[in-house]
Amino acid sequence: MTMPRFNAGRLFRIVLLPLLLLASACRTVTPPPATGELYQVSTLNALLEGVYDGTRTCGELKTHGTLGIGTFDGLDGELVLLDGRIFQVAGTGRVREVPDATTVPFACVIPFTGERQEALATMQDLDALKKELDRLRPNPNAFCAIRIDGTFVRVKTRSVPRQTKPYPKLVEVTKNQPVFESQNVSGTLVGFWCPAFAQGFNLPGYHLHFLSADRTAGGHLLDCRLEAGIVQMEQATGIRVSFPAGEGFGNARLDGDRSRDLHAAEQ
Amino acid sequence: MTMPRFNAGRLFRIVLLPLLLLASACRTVTPPPATGELYQVSTLNALLEGVYDGTRTCGELKTHGTLGIGTFDGLDGELVLLDGRIFQVAGTGRVREVPDATTVPFACVIPFTGERQEALATMQDLDALKKELDRLRPNPNAFCAIRIDGTFVRVKTRSVPRQTKPYPKLVEVTKNQPVFESQNVSGTLVGFWCPAFAQGFNLPGYHLHFLSADRTAGGHLLDCRLEAGIVQMEQATGIRVSFPAGEGFGNARLDGDRSRDLHAAEQ
Repeated sequence: MTMPRFNAGRLFRIVLLPLLLLASACRTVTPPPATGELYQVSTLNALLEGVYDGTRTCGELKTHGTLGIGTFDGLDGELVLLDGRIFQVAGTGRVREVPDATTVPFACVIPFTGERQEALATMQDLDALKKELDRLRPNPNAFCAIRIDGTFVRVKTRSVPRQTKPYPKLVEVTKNQPVFESQNVSGTLVGFWCPAFAQGFNLPGYHLHFLSADRTAGGHLLDCRLEAGIVQMEQATGIRVSFPAGEGFGNARLDGDRSRDLHAAEQ
Repeated sequence: MTMPRFNAGRLFRIVLLPLLLLASACRTVTPPPATGELYQVSTLNALLEGVYDGTRTCGELKTHGTLGIGTFDGLDGELVLLDGRIFQVAGTGRVREVPDATTVPFACVIPFTGERQEALATMQDLDALKKELDRLRPNPNAFCAIRIDGTFVRVKTRSVPRQTKPYPKLVEVTKNQPVFESQNVSGTLVGFWCPAFAQGFNLPGYHLHFLSADRTAGGHLLDCRLEAGIVQMEQATGIRVSFPAGEGFGNARLDGDRSRDLHAAEQ
């Protein structure tokens, strides 16, 4: 006899969702709490320019946060930090928890407390989800950490395969990025919303990664249809950016408005 | 009988300068050491927008650095942090050391070790000084802390008078800024060079404040003619920005290229 497999999606639909939607109907929008400092390794523009050498370990990252996103040495897949554990979604789509000694060239993490929860109803696509998040996130100048646990009709993600030197730029790599689709899957979206003034350091707007509840699928989020979920958001009290010491960062072209390249690379 | 007053300028010219210029002639340009993290309260764009309420104390600032610049609650003058002591150059030109409970709406500080020194010969004006600093500062992407001890033929500074609410924008305040000139004065320039990608957070380029050796004059540097001096520079290993919690920061327009406003306000 086999034990019935725990079905997180069914639990959502039958038990939690009606309660949450009821609570949602009564809520007023109050700002997300400001609780922790966003810790960032390098800048997204440096990653755009091909600065892929890992400079900080995953063990170090965990001392700065419990939730976050990033990539690995040599651009070896997408990073998801969730509940203090770091997962790699490799270019093959394979997911594994990584050893603390693994290094990262870019990451953003935050100590996430999840002290306020809001219910999310069905969201047709990522644009609809972003609009709802905009409504819940009233401060246009605050970095905001985001966690959405939910069931998804579909989730479309991408990852990136490990690169070798001389490193190509990120827009070159993402031209042939592996794309994955999951259907009827429970899981978690984690990431950040960054204000426009963060342009030189990070991606203005939303940047979310996905990890399935069974830890078999994930990646950088391209699109999704949410069935129902719970969102938790927290404003960062500050941002702490650690710069790589090497020549890659020192000599890279890091200035200017790179939003076109960024959006090409992140979509 | 009165004791002869210690003359730092004469000591420079007769004893230190010839030695330093000899050393300077033999040197090669090596990058400034990277030693500490730049700690910043708020962003310069928020200050431009009139977010002048103090949110961090001077006592707190001192735990993050020994050298730096900034301003005070209500835009009450220019801040100079030197050797772990914080001085205020008020709108009247008066200089005083401030109590630790004094608050700041904007400041940048760094733990400054001064482990490498370079001699500076005569610099006709601030532009010539900046060119020389550019030569000594080879990494175009590193935030760089600067300390110049020297004798000056002249130093032109400005300060800003304390503002009352509703706060005017910084460009309005600086239209009528008090300007001070000192001649044949010994003192110290302290400040930072910030890379272009820091645009949303700080002023790209140089931002220096002056404090005379006898602590009677100073302010935001507008121009100077250096007779001779010693420069110490250090690259920041990272930047840590603490955001104000209040509505002033939350609602301010902090994005976009503000370099025209910044240069109008800082010159």
